[in-house]
Amino acid sequence: MINTLNEILEKTKNREKPVVTIAGAEDEEILRAIIEAQKLGIANGFLVGNPELIKNTAYLHSLDISPFEIVPSSDTEDSSHLAVSLVTEGKSQIVMKGQVLTSTFLKAILDKDKGLRTGRLFSHVGIFEVPNIKRLLVISDAAMNISPTLKEKVDILLNALEVTRVLDIEMPKVAVLAAVEVVSENMPATIDAAILSKMNERGQLKGCIIDGPLALDCALSKEAAEHKGIKSKVAGEADVLLVPDIEAGNFLYKSFIYAARGETAGVVMGARSPVILTSRADSHQSKLYSIALATLLSLEGLYA
Amino acid sequence: MINTLNEILEKTKNREKPVVTIAGAEDEEILRAIIEAQKLGIANGFLVGNPELIKNTAYLHSLDISPFEIVPSSDTEDSSHLAVSLVTEGKSQIVMKGQVLTSTFLKAILDKDKGLRTGRLFSHVGIFEVPNIKRLLVISDAAMNISPTLKEKVDILLNALEVTRVLDIEMPKVAVLAAVEVVSENMPATIDAAILSKMNERGQLKGCIIDGPLALDCALSKEAAEHKGIKSKVAGEADVLLVPDIEAGNFLYKSFIYAARGETAGVVMGARSPVILTSRADSHQSKLYSIALATLLSLEGLYA
Repeated sequence: MINTLNEILEKTKNREKPVVTIAGAEDEEILRAIIEAQKLGIANGFLVGNPELIKNTAYLHSLDISPFEIVPSSDTEDSSHLAVSLVTEGKSQIVMKGQVLTSTFLKAILDKDKGLRTGRLFSHVGIFEVPNIKRLLVISDAAMNISPTLKEKVDILLNALEVTRVLDIEMPKVAVLAAVEVVSENMPATIDAAILSKMNERGQLKGCIIDGPLALDCALSKEAAEHKGIKSKVAGEADVLLVPDIEAGNFLYKSFIYAARGETAGVVMGARSPVILTSRADSHQSKLYSIALATLLSLEGLYA
Repeated sequence: MINTLNEILEKTKNREKPVVTIAGAEDEEILRAIIEAQKLGIANGFLVGNPELIKNTAYLHSLDISPFEIVPSSDTEDSSHLAVSLVTEGKSQIVMKGQVLTSTFLKAILDKDKGLRTGRLFSHVGIFEVPNIKRLLVISDAAMNISPTLKEKVDILLNALEVTRVLDIEMPKVAVLAAVEVVSENMPATIDAAILSKMNERGQLKGCIIDGPLALDCALSKEAAEHKGIKSKVAGEADVLLVPDIEAGNFLYKSFIYAARGETAGVVMGARSPVILTSRADSHQSKLYSIALATLLSLEGLYA
């Protein structure tokens, strides 16, 4: 079982190296991340974008991009489509957003004919290492699905379980988060949590232990759950935090980074390949961890 | 300007002591908090509940409750109503939930005839001291209003500003939080954020600087905002975090405590007196801070 982000790095070093294609490689931080990943033996890279701008960026920051092939594109839309096509052609195993708009990037990924659709829901899975918490925490979906339905929550969970599987978490504990532990008609998050718990109990959702509604304190702290009189196999031991909507998930995500000083790796699941969609504000380290996570998924995940 | 929870304690010591009435005082933790508040010269107390149970609780834990008057009640509903009536009769200035159900307690507070209604919206205001963040952060509403409308968000903000006023924050910076910084039709939180920002610009909401939509990273970190190219007077300096709904607020609240190891004080605003509504899982220290905050509001707030 993997307990730190660094263990993900270690587990992907010096194995078969998937090729990460960067859509819009004209970005210092992204270049640094792929260079380091290549040096560590985690991944190779294709740099899609304007060749002169990519070379200038590398030159200005003294970055050695000689290990990488540059794939010229005419604009950011073209960069996105080219990156996707390298995956569909089997030349690349991972696609990563660089200096292109998220909307442009996702449009290319989600394209019905030429994109990376599989029929499964696309969702973001974030892994967090937070000081004082001795295991990795998975949050989903904090970045793609705005206000998922119950059915979409099931798909989000299945995507998250694909990540916990490569993290060797044998029977992941899933907390379906809400503001309270009681089921309340007025709070849809609690209703869906109750339903998902029961579906798990009935064997409709396998390979994990689901409990909810749980507030975050109960998901993270056994003592808090005991104080509240909540008996739960998930309390204090949650591996996966299933959030009701993008705001709730995003605040938790950012709080883990900006208040609790944690680190993160993230990947978009549901596509034909792992998709890396880091934010400009993410740290350099976080971008590297995300590449390593995508590599691990590419090597050990369901990607054929 | 008050920057730590301890400064709130200091600012309330040895002044006029308001009387905190505890609805359901048969609880060790609550008794400890009021005893300490009394010793520090922050508040006096009325203990409403079953006199024998209160005395037994004190005896079992060697707590000296001799400074306090016990007000006998027949059950928890009666405790709640009695506590409220002590405030309406002017004998007490603050009411605090003890060993009674939140729903029972709030029913008494919100009672149309005998409750503490003022015509203003009731909302929870939480203050957080988080390691690594050099100022207090106010979150609202993380506990009472489930999915507030725009109008309710205005009222929630006004209640929060009443708290920042007694904290001597002269021109509080308010981040209206969302998952992103762009206004998106698909994300109601961003729409309300845009509207509230403009209302502030037009002078319809005074005494603060409002900006939103802002994601939490931009609210807390100037660097994150710069990375994203966001220019905002609030970025990196937010005092108030206005959240879109109870889940998003609650996750942030709990994350500040259970992941970032922060401390909190909380109060319900909008009533005829400050209302203290701590959770069983709150620390002893947090209960004391909440009493101090309520005292400060009672001494320097708008309560006539």
